[in-house]
Amino acid sequence: MPDRQDGMQTDTICQYSVDQYIDKLKAFHGNFAPGLLIGGFMVDAAARRMAEHEFVDAICESDSCLLDAIQMLTPCTVGNGWLKIVNTGRFALALYEKRSGVGVRVGIDASKLDRYPEIKNWLMRLKSKHEQDGAALLSEIKAAGPDILSVRPVQVSAALRTKKPGDPIGICESCGEAFPNNGSRLCLACQGMDLYG
Amino acid sequence: MPDRQDGMQTDTICQYSVDQYIDKLKAFHGNFAPGLLIGGFMVDAAARRMAEHEFVDAICESDSCLLDAIQMLTPCTVGNGWLKIVNTGRFALALYEKRSGVGVRVGIDASKLDRYPEIKNWLMRLKSKHEQDGAALLSEIKAAGPDILSVRPVQVSAALRTKKPGDPIGICESCGEAFPNNGSRLCLACQGMDLYG
Repeated sequence: MPDRQDGMQTDTICQYSVDQYIDKLKAFHGNFAPGLLIGGFMVDAAARRMAEHEFVDAICESDSCLLDAIQMLTPCTVGNGWLKIVNTGRFALALYEKRSGVGVRVGIDASKLDRYPEIKNWLMRLKSKHEQDGAALLSEIKAAGPDILSVRPVQVSAALRTKKPGDPIGICESCGEAFPNNGSRLCLACQGMDLYG
Repeated sequence: MPDRQDGMQTDTICQYSVDQYIDKLKAFHGNFAPGLLIGGFMVDAAARRMAEHEFVDAICESDSCLLDAIQMLTPCTVGNGWLKIVNTGRFALALYEKRSGVGVRVGIDASKLDRYPEIKNWLMRLKSKHEQDGAALLSEIKAAGPDILSVRPVQVSAALRTKKPGDPIGICESCGEAFPNNGSRLCLACQGMDLYG
């Protein structure tokens, strides 16, 4: 598929073909998820615009499958701290230069979804998973590519970029395990979390 | 390295040799992290005990690098929802059968760390990263293997296993994006989060 006039491409997602990316997401995420394919186009759109920066961190505005698109396609993972979850509930992400906070945010432009009824059904939860037409949804996502995205420059707030110093570590007087001791003698679990019945 | 008398092995982490696992963690996590190697032995210890179960979910009690050990070694990711973060502050994880909640929790037995001073320095933050002896720490972690772990059966609480039904999706009156509408006309970001300055 040739490049589109607006400079956006729909035939690749970062260094992968769309089909290679789908194989990769099945291997990591365990199954195909529509949001992960849309998420792939979102990461791609952001990564293209951040290509000149060496150290790029990520924010995911959702605790959904979108996280895995970022983890698969960038060096940012939840475990290495370069990917932060800031759950606004919106299906959106930002990539930004680690120190300056200069970055790009990519979301979904809901106003463009009337042309993509299956994507709209999925995003707006108008149909249950069982009622969705999976094949039509996949075709629409592939056809839409970045066409349904909204992309804008952002400046990530200093509060999100400031690494908090770790608390000193203490030993919980109840369970005997190490925990960040911010003044309590008990870890959060032993303070009464409903974790293990 | 032969199996130890207690049936624990230190020469493999799940399907990988220790060195293969270290290569894998560098590729996914971006760099070597001591906690990820300990985390590998932790996942291995739990996975061995859950091998007969088909659908195994995970809890990570920390928002640290331990998350990436779980994401690398199991099908559970933060994005597919099979891995939940329940941040008690303890360096611990649990694997459990998805429906019944029957599982295994693995933590670090702080009482065993006197024999492993570099691991103790790391876990208890007694030395800064700069002051740690990285090579000695790596040797100690490899030598210790599962020896420093505490393993116990758990029953994961029903509250953690109950999937909450999704809120209906609305369009935020401010930003125009889709969001889970639990009664507000504005998404959480437009309600005043300090996200993009």
